[in-house]
Amino acid sequence: MNENMTETGADRRTQLRERLIEAAQEIIAAHGLAALKARDLAAAAGCALGAIYTAFGDLDELILRVNARTLARLEAAIDSALGDAAAEQSLQAMARTYLTFARKEEPSWRALFEHRLPPGAAPPQWYVDARNRLFNRLDGPLSRLLPGTSHRAREAFARTLFSAVHGVVALGLDEKIAETPPKMLDEQLEKLVRVLADGLMMESTRLI
Amino acid sequence: MNENMTETGADRRTQLRERLIEAAQEIIAAHGLAALKARDLAAAAGCALGAIYTAFGDLDELILRVNARTLARLEAAIDSALGDAAAEQSLQAMARTYLTFARKEEPSWRALFEHRLPPGAAPPQWYVDARNRLFNRLDGPLSRLLPGTSHRAREAFARTLFSAVHGVVALGLDEKIAETPPKMLDEQLEKLVRVLADGLMMESTRLI
Repeated sequence: MNENMTETGADRRTQLRERLIEAAQEIIAAHGLAALKARDLAAAAGCALGAIYTAFGDLDELILRVNARTLARLEAAIDSALGDAAAEQSLQAMARTYLTFARKEEPSWRALFEHRLPPGAAPPQWYVDARNRLFNRLDGPLSRLLPGTSHRAREAFARTLFSAVHGVVALGLDEKIAETPPKMLDEQLEKLVRVLADGLMMESTRLI
Repeated sequence: MNENMTETGADRRTQLRERLIEAAQEIIAAHGLAALKARDLAAAAGCALGAIYTAFGDLDELILRVNARTLARLEAAIDSALGDAAAEQSLQAMARTYLTFARKEEPSWRALFEHRLPPGAAPPQWYVDARNRLFNRLDGPLSRLLPGTSHRAREAFARTLFSAVHGVVALGLDEKIAETPPKMLDEQLEKLVRVLADGLMMESTRLI
């Protein structure tokens, strides 16, 4: 076996992985995570059923690859929404972008939260990195609102803030706790972020 | 058919409904909503499969009955946690109680959010009432933090507040966005409520 042959084999595997990720992404985007079946996936990617497991260790890895691309699209949307606005306005822009993304890519966005690894399994580092890159976008505005704090403290609060925004977006889109027409949800989210930004400013005066 | 016979028939139906609600509650509490199958339910309640649909219009109604009881347990837990504490302390006690309830009754609590009615179907009024009773518990502390506001404005913000707390609890228990040991989640939730209460106080000074 010479080097060229090995390289061609590796290329083919890379191409197959790419086709499978794209096919899985389309199925999830159109019909949601629950609709992802190995058989349909193989048909859409034009490969044998068994080839999926040659290209990826298991379906979980493939789903995490799709979810990491969803995270990257969300990151790009947030970056284009952020100018050099003041801290509260940056947080408002990020929250609005998150809501817009969730509305526009609802099944892909839901798959981020619906997918569960087997008990005890930890997500691979590349997935953790993709997630952390996204949370790091909150560090700029938070460091302006909370000038005295450590990066670590802001990191913890970035997650809390994200979770709070996510809660309002997720329950609002589900209309799980009340009828929530789009305009009402927009207003609820804006008010939440304003109250949080005000509260954080008071927090920062206490720290001094 | 005399009145007594009708009454006995109604009684039997009430008893069957009760047995089915209890059996469904046990299955959901032990194995989650996804594990609820009509066949197992009939076996657990000691009735024929078809009897389920005599007792309830459909499985959705039965699930909503179970979920309404979960809401009532949550309401009772919140009432016993609330003393005549100051507004922020009341909100802290409610948020802590919500987290404790979610930890203790995780599958029943998840079923509140996992269950979806068919597209276009609205929840029955008795379910909406059970849900609203719970949100009304927030009105006391919110009216002390926001003395100038209308009941309607507080009602809207109660839902936003609940959604934010729910987001932190749900993503924290899932460890969906980061490892979140119990103590860290307790702290995140406390900080969220403190920042929100501070922000609401600033909001109220603006309203005056």
